[in-house]
Formats: sequence, structure tokens, C-alpha cells
Amino acid sequence: MNNFIYNIPVKVYFGENQLEHLGPEVKNYGSKVLLTYGGGSIKKIGLYDNVMHELKQMGVEVFEFGGIEPNPRIESVNAAIALCKEKGIEVILAVGGGSTIDASKVIGAGVYYDGDAWDLVTRKAPIKNALPLLTILTLSATGSEMDAGGVITKLSTNEKYGIGHESMLPKVSFLDPTVTYSVNAYQTACGSADIISHILELYFNTTEDLRMLDYMMEGLLRTVIDYAPVALKEPTNYEARANLMWASSWAINGFLNGGKRQAWSVHPMEHELSAFYDITHGLGLAQLTPRFLRYCLNDQTVARYVRFGVEVFGIDKTLEPMEIAERSIQSLETFFFETLGLQKTFTEIGIDRTHFKAMADKACRGKEIKGFITLKPEDVEKIFEMCL
Amino acid sequence: MNNFIYNIPVKVYFGENQLEHLGPEVKNYGSKVLLTYGGGSIKKIGLYDNVMHELKQMGVEVFEFGGIEPNPRIESVNAAIALCKEKGIEVILAVGGGSTIDASKVIGAGVYYDGDAWDLVTRKAPIKNALPLLTILTLSATGSEMDAGGVITKLSTNEKYGIGHESMLPKVSFLDPTVTYSVNAYQTACGSADIISHILELYFNTTEDLRMLDYMMEGLLRTVIDYAPVALKEPTNYEARANLMWASSWAINGFLNGGKRQAWSVHPMEHELSAFYDITHGLGLAQLTPRFLRYCLNDQTVARYVRFGVEVFGIDKTLEPMEIAERSIQSLETFFFETLGLQKTFTEIGIDRTHFKAMADKACRGKEIKGFITLKPEDVEKIFEMCL
Repeated sequence: MNNFIYNIPVKVYFGENQLEHLGPEVKNYGSKVLLTYGGGSIKKIGLYDNVMHELKQMGVEVFEFGGIEPNPRIESVNAAIALCKEKGIEVILAVGGGSTIDASKVIGAGVYYDGDAWDLVTRKAPIKNALPLLTILTLSATGSEMDAGGVITKLSTNEKYGIGHESMLPKVSFLDPTVTYSVNAYQTACGSADIISHILELYFNTTEDLRMLDYMMEGLLRTVIDYAPVALKEPTNYEARANLMWASSWAINGFLNGGKRQAWSVHPMEHELSAFYDITHGLGLAQLTPRFLRYCLNDQTVARYVRFGVEVFGIDKTLEPMEIAERSIQSLETFFFETLGLQKTFTEIGIDRTHFKAMADKACRGKEIKGFITLKPEDVEKIFEMCL
Repeated sequence: MNNFIYNIPVKVYFGENQLEHLGPEVKNYGSKVLLTYGGGSIKKIGLYDNVMHELKQMGVEVFEFGGIEPNPRIESVNAAIALCKEKGIEVILAVGGGSTIDASKVIGAGVYYDGDAWDLVTRKAPIKNALPLLTILTLSATGSEMDAGGVITKLSTNEKYGIGHESMLPKVSFLDPTVTYSVNAYQTACGSADIISHILELYFNTTEDLRMLDYMMEGLLRTVIDYAPVALKEPTNYEARANLMWASSWAINGFLNGGKRQAWSVHPMEHELSAFYDITHGLGLAQLTPRFLRYCLNDQTVARYVRFGVEVFGIDKTLEPMEIAERSIQSLETFFFETLGLQKTFTEIGIDRTHFKAMADKACRGKEIKGFITLKPEDVEKIFEMCL
């Protein structure tokens, strides 16, 4: 069992109508704020107006940077950094989902770097500091609202990498489940798959760790499995939206890590799909995860699948281990592709073998992924094949 | 579902041999440190020497205040406050269990108050600030290492009250499971009962809240039920001690609260037992909790017991609800009084009816406890009777 450091000093306002706290919290960190957002849905739902009202009431000076893309691009990040430097921005308020928040983290870090922020993403240069960041979450998915990581894409070279630094951890996040009422069924499904994937990257792990964390992971998985279907049927069901929202934060805020040191496997594979085809992250994860699990199943790994099947899907524990394992993978597939209604194959979303080799090489960064089992590029190619 | 604010900025070093981080962390908060501890077990296990070595290496000036009692007394707290004021203490390092840490919190708060610290405990005067506190935990039980509360006793008037303030939250806590290897079976059992009680005070709750938190509570309960017996049989089992230790922190650090607003019931009752008889807190909780649950069971509350029995003890969910409820209470009794080996009745630990009325009145603070069901003094007396 490895040692670990637990340190998540993010303050979270959870629930409806908490924006009265926004102005004072922003003001704690600065008086010149950059408001970042995506495609403008925050204007449609009235959130933009509410935010501006609260900020102006506190007398902070607001600059805006909208239009941040899903799979946010380094070009946008660099443009926003230039704006921050020009205007002397002191604090960033990200209003959006994971893309907006991820981009805002790297924008904040880029302000302290004299050059192309892509250097930070590719680790050519180290991140040393970042502007203080506050967030208002509009999509339950990536957990970016409570972690210190961000993923940025350079579409011109089909590259997408994650980077993290403690200074990029949000200071304050506002989680209002009603803000996600307008998230459509497809995005709700993709977000739910994203949450599940985060947990499974940790759950299917060979590091001996605290069983308490297994229980926590199983509980979070059951939460998503319980409530994602409710949110799909009743988009304004507060209970469902609230459970998904808080689960999204806890799936990846670091609590579940404990002392695990193993590399994630499905995320680097998915990043290649998004980098080459610009697909929705959660959809790629949903397609890859069950195939990855099936690929890793063997006599050495089966015990983990048994626990997963019994505790999460309530599969009869008296069955043969391999039978339980197979049923657990099937249950996950049923959940992703029938309950959530996500497309099941690469073929359906326009991905063919063309770039398999290049994507597999890049996912392994030329070597291998030392995860639940060690994956070499040829293994990743086989998993891609299973998704066709 | 109520709104809530989540904010637990405690940094935790979890695992063995992490004390190399102690000196720098203490130094972050000051150069004159008060080292607080209890009866001296930290000297027997060598922890005292290790701590002093790390502190001296950093060149901080160390003052000591040992001998803090179980059910820590206001007299000790006041004496330590006087020492802090005299020596200009800047930071407190508490090395011990809940009693030492609780006392240290109120010592830290008392430094900012000009008068008897009992005024703070009885809320006659508000807590406004406290010295920064770091802790090294030696007993998995109260969760004081990761929460902002403390409980102080005035034995001369048989009073024991809890008080909390955000400034009393530890800045950094060191959780090393091997430090608890020497905790004897009785204290291990009492500590485990304490952890379970904290969770059940929240679990048996009428506030509609996030189901995710139910799953978390059930997982923590199962963690303690799995591992307390292991720790009793094998005191140096790292896995067992580690799971109990991290569960103790998460049982009461605020995460499980969500939006619950209901008063705790068993703790105020137990505080009277400790105040009048100076018994171990966890033992009192173990005796009271199953009787409290039996007293509250009725057609309106039974559903909660059913979930508890099925999810935590694996009781057959096809049984009649009242049958499941009764079996769940029996399972808890079996765990406390057989598996953990704790004494089952007041009679066995020398408590009789003498002070029932006075204790019941004080537990209700003259009125009632608005908890899972509303308890008036006569209800509390009946629960005491059930414990004889």
C-alpha cells in the first residue's frame, strides 16, 4: 500500500441560487476578471446575465473570452493568454463544462509563461504558477471543477494532451444542478460515461490500496448508474442532476486515487480519437472502456471483474468467476449503448482503420501504457479493432 | 434537498515515514510551537523523539503541554492557553487522539479570547480565530484530525459540550497507520464504535439528501465492519489499521453531511454519560446507538432501517420490512458487543438510574433533541433505561 498526500482545498457552493456568493468570492482573488465560456449556451439559459449582474455589483472589471471549443484548442488558449497579459487580468472565472474549465486552467498558467502555451501542455516547459480560477459548472462530466488538470488539443498536428499543476486547482466552484437541466440527452449520456470512465481507470488497478476506496468507487458508480437514466427521461429532475453533478467531481478530484500510481489506459487511447476525429470525449470513452476491459480479462485479472460485477451490477456471486466477469462487461455495454443510447461502434461515428497505427503509437507515446495490464501499440490497435 | 458548502482544506500526509514533511509544514505556520499530547504513550512508541528530532532540525522553538486527559478538561485547556500567551506561541502541534486534538483546537481559540475558555465552549462568547493547528493522529476514532470541532468537559459541574469554528480546522494532519499498532483492543473497539456512530448520526436522518452520500456512508460502515475485527486479532495489520484510520477522518469531516441539517441524537446523550461517569466516549456510543435505533423504529422510519440492513449487513431484502429492521439492529448489537467485545449494559460499567433525569434534561438542553425523531427528556430517559 503506497503513501499518499490528500489535499483538495476547493471550496464548493452546491445547490440552487448560490450566485449571491460569486461576487465576494471573485473579489477575494482580484478585481480584474476574465470571464471564459464556450459556445454561448450560458446566454440562452440566462446564466450569463446573472453572472454579469453579480460581478458588476461587486465592482470588478470584467473582460470576456467566449467561444472556447469542445476539445479546447491551443490557439484559443494562446489568444486568451494574450488578452490576460494585455489587460492585466488577476483572476479567471470559467463558466462552462470541462472544456472551458480545462482551457481556463492552461490560460491561467500561460500568463506566467513567456512563450507558446503548447510548451506547457507538452511539458517542454514546466508550469510554475497560474492565475486564481473560479468556476461555474454547466455540465456534469470531466470533474475539472475540482481537480488540477486540463486537456488541450492541437488539431493541426492531431495532438491532445493532459497536463496538471496544483496552481491550476480551482479556488471556488459553483455547482448548481439546475444549470444542467438544459443539457441534452446526448451530452448527458456522454458526461455520465465520462464519470464512469474516470472511476474505472482507478478501479481496474493492480496497486494494492485501501478497500475503503473500492467501496467509495462502487458507490459512485452505482450513483451514476441509478441517476443517468433518470436525467435522460426527466431532464429537470433535481435529484438526478444533483447526484450526477457531485459524483462527477468526486470521480476525479483525487480522493479515490489513494496511493495508486498506475497509469490510466483508456484516456490516452480516447485522446487520440478526439485528436484525429474531434469526437466527444465521453462517447469515445464509452466505446473504448468495455473493449479495453474485455482485452485485459484473464486468470490473473479476473478477481477484480468479479468484485465489480457483484458490487456494482448485483451479479450473482455464486457463478463462476469468468462468467461473472463476462456478465459485468456486458452489463456495462448494456448501460452505455442501450440505457444511455450511445453509439456502440467506431463505424457508426465515422472512424475506420486509417489512423489506427498512428493513434496507437501516440497513445503509447511510442512505448507502452503501464496500466491495468501493460499495453503496447499493437495491443492498442487490437482494442481499436474491437471497437469497429 | 438543501444547499450546502463543501470546504475541507486539510492537507493529509497518509502512510508510514512521512514525518520528514513535519518540520517544513510546521514552519509554514510559525517558529514557536506548542507540542500537545496526552498520557505519554507517544514517548513509549518513540513518536515523541521522532517529532522532536524533526522540529529541532527545522530550528523551531518547542514548548510542551502533556497530560491532556481523555474527555479533556477545561482546566487543562485554560492552563495551556496561559502558556501560549506567556510564550507567544504561533502554532500548535497536537500529537494524540481525539482528546488531545480537541483540546488543542480550543487552546488555539482561547489564545484569541480574554477570559475563561469555558465561555467559548458554552457559547457565551463567540470563537473568532484560533492558532494554526497541525496534528499527528495516534488513534482512529473521533475524526478530529480533519474536522473543525472539539468537545471539552468540566467535570466539576458534569458538563461536556462540543464546539466548532472554521479557524479550528487543522491545517495539516499526519495519518500513519503504524502509529496505531500499539492501540490496545479495547481502545481499538471503542474507536471503531465511535466511527460507526458518527456515520449513523448522519445516516438515520430525515433530510432528503444525495443518494450518493448514502452509498458513501454504507461503504464507510462496511469498511469499519470489515477491518475492526482484523485489527483486534492482528494489531499490526497495516491494511486494517489504514482503512480504519482513513475511515475515521471521512466519517465526520463534513463530506457526508451534504445538505443535512438535523441535530445529532446519540452524541448529546453520550456526552452526559462521559460528563457524569467519565467513561470512554466510544463505549457510551456503542451502548446507546442500538437502543436509540430500536426506540426510533416505527412505520414512518422503517424504510431507512431496511436500506441499512440490506446494504450494510447484507440482510435478505425479500423479508418483511420490520423483520429486516429488527435484524439490522441485532446485527449492529452483535458487532459491538460480540465482535468488538464491548460491554453491553450500563450496569456492567457502573451506571445506574441515579442521574438519568439530570442527564436526560441536559442532553436535551432543557427542551428536546430534534433528530431522527424528536426526543424529549422523557424519551432520553427511556433510552437510558433500555441500556441498563
